[in-house]
Parts: sequence; C-alpha cells; structure tokens
Amino acid sequence: MLFHVTMDVRIPHDADPAYIERLKAEEKARAQELQQAGTWRHLWRVAGAYRNVSIFDVADNAALHDLLMSLPLFPFMEISVTPLCRHPSSIHSDDR
Amino acid sequence: MLFHVTMDVRIPHDADPAYIERLKAEEKARAQELQQAGTWRHLWRVAGAYRNVSIFDVADNAALHDLLMSLPLFPFMEISVTPLCRHPSSIHSDDR
Amino acid sequence: MLFHVTMDVRIPHDADPAYIERLKAEEKARAQELQQAGTWRHLWRVAGAYRNVSIFDVADNAALHDLLMSLPLFPFMEISVTPLCRHPSSIHSDDR
Amino acid sequence: MLFHVTMDVRIPHDADPAYIERLKAEEKARAQELQQAGTWRHLWRVAGAYRNVSIFDVADNAALHDLLMSLPLFPFMEISVTPLCRHPSSIHSDDR
Amino acid sequence: MLFHVTMDVRIPHDADPAYIERLKAEEKARAQELQQAGTWRHLWRVAGAYRNVSIFDVADNAALHDLLMSLPLFPFMEISVTPLCRHPSSIHSDDR
Amino acid sequence: MLFHVTMDVRIPHDADPAYIERLKAEEKARAQELQQAGTWRHLWRVAGAYRNVSIFDVADNAALHDLLMSLPLFPFMEISVTPLCRHPSSIHSDDR
Amino acid sequence: MLFHVTMDVRIPHDADPAYIERLKAEEKARAQELQQAGTWRHLWRVAGAYRNVSIFDVADNAALHDLLMSLPLFPFMEISVTPLCRHPSSIHSDDR
Amino acid sequence: MLFHVTMDVRIPHDADPAYIERLKAEEKARAQELQQAGTWRHLWRVAGAYRNVSIFDVADNAALHDLLMSLPLFPFMEISVTPLCRHPSSIHSDDR
Amino acid sequence: MLFHVTMDVRIPHDADPAYIERLKAEEKARAQELQQAGTWRHLWRVAGAYRNVSIFDVADNAALHDLLMSLPLFPFMEISVTPLCRHPSSIHSDDR
Amino acid sequence: MLFHVTMDVRIPHDADPAYIERLKAEEKARAQELQQAGTWRHLWRVAGAYRNVSIFDVADNAALHDLLMSLPLFPFMEISVTPLCRHPSSIHSDDR
Repeated sequence: MLFHVTMDVRIPHDADPAYIERLKAEEKARAQELQQAGTWRHLWRVAGAYRNVSIFDVADNAALHDLLMSLPLFPFMEISVTPLCRHPSSIHSDDR
Repeated sequence: MLFHVTMDVRIPHDADPAYIERLKAEEKARAQELQQAGTWRHLWRVAGAYRNVSIFDVADNAALHDLLMSLPLFPFMEISVTPLCRHPSSIHSDDR
Repeated sequence: MLFHVTMDVRIPHDADPAYIERLKAEEKARAQELQQAGTWRHLWRVAGAYRNVSIFDVADNAALHDLLMSLPLFPFMEISVTPLCRHPSSIHSDDR
Repeated sequence: MLFHVTMDVRIPHDADPAYIERLKAEEKARAQELQQAGTWRHLWRVAGAYRNVSIFDVADNAALHDLLMSLPLFPFMEISVTPLCRHPSSIHSDDR
Repeated sequence: MLFHVTMDVRIPHDADPAYIERLKAEEKARAQELQQAGTWRHLWRVAGAYRNVSIFDVADNAALHDLLMSLPLFPFMEISVTPLCRHPSSIHSDDR
Repeated sequence: MLFHVTMDVRIPHDADPAYIERLKAEEKARAQELQQAGTWRHLWRVAGAYRNVSIFDVADNAALHDLLMSLPLFPFMEISVTPLCRHPSSIHSDDR
Repeated sequence: MLFHVTMDVRIPHDADPAYIERLKAEEKARAQELQQAGTWRHLWRVAGAYRNVSIFDVADNAALHDLLMSLPLFPFMEISVTPLCRHPSSIHSDDR
Repeated sequence: MLFHVTMDVRIPHDADPAYIERLKAEEKARAQELQQAGTWRHLWRVAGAYRNVSIFDVADNAALHDLLMSLPLFPFMEISVTPLCRHPSSIHSDDR
Repeated sequence: MLFHVTMDVRIPHDADPAYIERLKAEEKARAQELQQAGTWRHLWRVAGAYRNVSIFDVADNAALHDLLMSLPLFPFMEISVTPLCRHPSSIHSDDR
Repeated sequence: MLFHVTMDVRIPHDADPAYIERLKAEEKARAQELQQAGTWRHLWRVAGAYRNVSIFDVADNAALHDLLMSLPLFPFMEISVTPLCRHPSSIHSDDR
C-alpha cells in the first residue's frame, strides 16, 4: 500500500556538526537499506530545498509510522503523509 | 527530467453534466496516451479526494506546461508543480 | 487499519433543495449501513458546523477511497484524511 | 461530553535529554491512568508525526482544561480542541 | 458552561433580497429570545464587518450545536467555536 | 468602548523559571487590579491552551495600548485586537 | 481616534454593470463627503489592486462601524480594521 | 524603477466564451505594445498554471497602477506587486 | 512616491538588554530625523502590538530599501511593503 | 531553461558575526561568478527585506539544485522555486 511522504529537514544552526554528520551518514545507510528492501520505493530530492518526496510501499499505517520514526534525522524533520491508491486512469493494473 | 505535479479537480456544481463526462473521457484517454509514451511516469489517486499526484518525465519546463495545458480538465484544475532531481541517497544512478 | 477523516459539507445556496434533501437521505442510509458493518467505526458532529469527524476501519487506502467516493454528498465535501495507528501509551493492545 | 483534541509535541533539540525522558515516562503513566478512568476515551498516534488524536469524555470545558494542563508534556505541546456531539446519522443513541 | 463563537455572515450577491430580509428578521427575533433566556450571554458586533463575537452559556456541546443550527442565517455563516472556562486570575468565582 | 483581545502566552523553554514565576505573579495582580477598576471587563481561559480571551472597556486605542504594554508578560505574548461595538440585535441599549 | 482600514473590492463578474456603476458613483461621493468632514483622513490606492488603504479619525468603534456600513460598496468589500495610536517616536504630539 | 508582478488569471467557468476570447486577444496586443515600449521588460509563463511572472520598468507606483488597470483581463486577475531594486551583488551597475 | 510599510519588531528573549536599549534609542533618533526630513511622512503605533504602520515618501524603491536597511532595529523586524498611489476618489490632487 | 527563485535570508541573532561576514563575502563572490557565466541571469533585491528574486538559466532541475546548494548562505535561506517558460504573448522568440 502506497504513501506519499514529504520530509523537510531543518537542522538548527547551533547543533553539534559532528553529531549531525553522523546522523546524516546513518540516515543514508537506513534509506538505502529500505530502498533495497523495496519498502522505500521512490526517493527524490526537491530542487532548491533540503526536502525530499518519497513513495513508501508498506503493509499499513503502523508500519509506515515505525519506519519513519526509525530514521535518524526524524527529530529534525517536518513530515507530511498522504495515502495513495491506484488511479482509475492508470495504465497499470497495480499501483506502480 | 522529473516534475512532481498535484492536480486538484474542482467541477462547479452547476456545470453541464454531459459536457463534463465527455471531458473526463477525453482526460482518461489523454492520460493513458502520455503514460504509454513514458512521459506521465506515475499517476496515483490521493485517497479521499478528487486529486492526483503525478510524476512527469519531460524535456524541460515548456514541455511540461504544454502537456498540462493539453489536459481537457485543465480549466477545472488547481495545479502545483515541484521540480525534482536525483536524491544523493538514492540507490539508483538515475532519477527513478 | 484506522483513518481519521473530517468532512466539511458545503451546499451551494442555489442548489436544488429537493435534490439535496434526497442526497442527504441517501447519505444517512449509507452512513448507517457502513456503521453497522463496523467500517465506519465512529461518526461525531463538530459542534457549530456542518462538519463531522469520523474514524474508519478499512483494509487499505483504496478501500477508504472507494468508500468515501460512494458517499452521495461527496461532490459537496471538503475531506481531509489522516492515517492513524496504535499509540504506544494506549492501554489497548489493538487500535481501539 | 466529548472533545476532539490533537496534540503536537515539539521537544526543543537542546532540551536536557534526561529531563525529557522523565517527562515522557510521567506522560505515559498519566495517559494510562486517564484511559483507565474512561476520561481519555481514545488515544491514537498520527502516522509519521509526534502527534496524537484523542477523544476525551469530560464533564465540561474546565475539566478538559485542568486535565490537559496536568499532562507533563503540556509545555511542549501545540494543542487544538474541537467540541463534538452525537451525529444525527449515528447508529448509537449516545455519543460513542 | 461558556463557548466563544464568532459568526461571519456571507450573503451571496445573487440571493433573493426578500428572502434574506425575512431571514434577518427571524434571526434578530431568535437572537433576542436566546438573550432573554440568558443562553446568549453576550452579543457584540465586530467593527467594520458583518461578523459578531458571542458568548453562549449552555449545558453542553450538543446544546450549543442545536442552538446554532436553529439560527435562520446558519446556512450563510462561517462559524468558529472556542470552549472557555474560568481564568485563574479572574476576580469572579464563577465564569462571568 | 470595547475591545476583544486574545493573548497567547509563549514562555521559551530555556527562560529562567524564577523570573517567569515572578512575572506571572505580577501579571495576576495587575489583571485583578484592572478587573476591579472595570477596565478588564471579562477574562476567560481558552480550554486546552495558555491563551485567554478578554474584553476591555477603555477610553480609546491609546488607553488600550498602554494597558496591554503594562502587562508583565507582554514580551511573551502574541496579541490580537478586535474593536467591538453594540450589536443591532442586542437586547441591551449599551454594549454589555 | 485613528483606525487603519484596508478595503478589498470584489465585484462578481456576473453583477449588473449599470447597478455597479451607480454604486461606484455613490461610493465616490460618500468618500469625498467624509474626507471633506475630516473623518476619512487619508485614502490611498494600493498599486495593482482594486484595494485601498485608509485612515479614519472617528469618535469610537461604533462610529467607525456605522461609517463603513454606510459605504455603497460595503457588500462587495473584504475589510480589515486595525486600531492605531500615537507612536512614541512620532515628532507630533498628536496622532498625525 | 522595477516592479515584480505575478498575475493569476481566473476565468469563471460560466463566462461568455466569445467575450473572453476577445479580451485575450486585446490582452496580447496590449502586452506586446508595452513590451515594445520597454515598460513590460520581462514576461514569463509559470509552468503548469494560467499565471505569469512579469518585470515592469515604470516611473513610479501610479504609472504601474494605471498600466495594470489598463489590461483587458484585469477584472479576472489576482495580482501581487513587489518593489525591486538593484542587488548589491549584481554585476550590473543598473537594475538589469 | 508613497510606500505603506508595516514593521513587526521581534526582540529575542535572550538578547543582551543593554545592546537592545541602545538600538532602540538609535532607532528613535533615526525615525525622528527622517520624519523631520519629510521622508517618514506618517508613523503610527498599532494598538496592542510592538508593530508600527508607516507611510514613506521616497524617490524610488532603492531609496526605500536603503532607508529601511539603515534602521538600527532592521535585523529584528518583519517588514511588509505596499506601493501606494493617489486614489481616484481622493479630494487631494496629490497623494496626501 | 529558466527558474524563478526567491531567497529569504534569515541569520539567527546569536550567530557568530565574523563567520557570517565571511559567508556573505563568499556568497557575493559566488553570485558574481555565476552571473558572469550567464547562469544567474537576473538578481534583484526586494525593497525592504533581506530577500532576493533571481532568474536562473540552467540545463535542468539537478543543475539548479546543485547550484543553490553551493551558495554559502544556503543553510540560512528559505528558498522557493518556480519553473518558467516562454509566454505566448512575449515579443521574444526565446525566453528572455
């Protein structure tokens, strides 16, 4: 089941740089792990902002929540979630 | 090059039903034509609303504009456009 | 799986009264049918507005969308959808 | 009498972690106490955010206010309150 | 129990003048009836707008809702409701 | 002459607690003094928030401004001011 | 006593042109009458919009309200009112 | 002197098509006339919307206002105006 | 040429008091200097807020910008600028 | 291909002044370098704010993103991006 998620990352200017760099590295590893698993189906960068648009394929709401909470940068994110489903004009029989 | 586009369709309650049905049929045909061509890469329905989230793969801004203006339901749409690009944490080398 | 849905009903002042009354009756019947089935788990009126707050228990996003589109008053509604899940401090093991 | 309350928790990034952990533990205990008492009738987590949607069953506005002020995390919360009542299409005679 | 209510009246420019005048007269009568009963405790006009700020003293949310729905101009109103209670710095022991 | 004023108090989490407690005590004393004088005609707490709704009876705009600036917690307040006047449907000849 | 008022005029596209022209002429006459009287102290046009910024010098809120309600174009206006007073850094002893 | 202006054109769905086509033709002629004169320095289309971003080079605010009011589609436009000036980091000595 | 400018001053609660007092004194001196020169034509205080409404008479946009940047409290201000011009219903031939 | 970009610079009041001055110098150098290259086609200052309006001519979204991320002041900027294309009423055959 698909969810459209935007993540706005706002790092406070007085945060500890070393700590933030470590979180960013962990975030990248976690994101790639989830992409490999097919859960994080699409991950795009919004041009001009520290923001991404992502499409997640998860079992249900709880799975989505746990996944997002597991992201190292979660505490610095403004997240918005939109449930998606197959469009009646889609040429795919599933929700690609 | 990818663009994230949301389309909110607002049909006035006193519009001519037959005319609107014809536009919807043309809209579906046009959408499927563009999907077949690979231009309209993703088309999802937002659960609970007459709104879609789409990902377009076009040559440039002008191509995107002409494409959107060609949609039969364009006059009844609130459209927002967000330019996307490959995310540094994406496991794909391109912008899938 | 639970979804929190608010529905703001806006009937245009020049809509045909008889037609609207018929839609309202169909809406009530449909709502009660879905409540009996356990799908529409909670339906509350917001004090002072033609708005409701509802909790739906559905299989997935698509089921929610189809259900909402089936509501006779859907064309006159501004709907917002929020996916819910069990709260870690809930005393229930499920998502009541 | 029912109130719909959303609570957005925003912990400043430079708050003392130990103090916050203690508040969270007290918050959970307080929430479970109120649920046991039937006052905090529903507590759901919004998927993807440090936010909950709750339904309170209280005697009146003052009782609601005192209850919310008693929550340990109150100083870090953006709260919005919406008074509810039984919906005319509800299949329940009361406000479940 | 007190509720703070603002009512923005928006009469469509093409509404039938005679019908609207009749509604306004009924509205005034209903408002004065409720003020006499002590339910509509305060009714003030916002300077420069077709908007009022009112304080209602009602038994509960349902009573407030029924009262507001009974106002002849309800269909042309944007209403916002805020539950009030006694302020800890008030010199009154009750919620005047 | 009446003014409707809402005051949202936002105390920064890292403010000095003792200083803030002293301000709160001074604020309460000042508020009660003004209520006794009849200037601060109504003071209500908004249920669920550190916010009040107040009605001031003052000579003019300047008097209102000086009064609000004199409140010890003024620097931590988001204030909105709405000029009121007697409503044509009020049963009072004055602006109660 | 001064009030800052902005007036956004929105004439529906299907309003009767002759009626609107008559209202505009009456509005101009009324505005000039009030300027002559010194009540409408300043009247400026916002560049690029059918909007004005005005400064009124009136006895109190009620006088302002009656004045604005007397404007022929009032039903087509979105009005916002801000109470002003003398600034402590003004070189004038009064509120010019 | 430069002004940044955005123009959102909203044609009501029930407007007379012939009348609107005539206005659009007059609008195009007027726009090209002003571009030739150097007053309308830049005119760009926003991709995906019936909106333009324009840069005007005019003598002053009044000239800008008269120019915009002279546009045939003015009654159907939401316009926002932002005064510009030379940026200290510009490589041009003037405001190109 | 006239500009309508609102200035919202937001002094961070942990700013150095002595430094801020010095800036305020410099701000007052600068404001009075500009009023004497006729550039700062009107300066009013918004009742209930640390905000002013000002009317500036300047040669062009650049002059306005330089003037505002020269205000000692500029770094703590949220400023909004609206270009004004003479209203067709004004009884003055110029833009008073 | 053209993009319209606004950049709001918000320097925290407690940032290290020397560090910020260095960033500003680097920003100016980078901006002038990009203007010389023709990529940063227009750079204007918004009168009254620490904000600019810019027009970039880049190959695609990714080029725009990399460019903006390379700006030394990027971490302190709120950026909004709007894709532009040639307007049908432009007198230019290209997108000047």
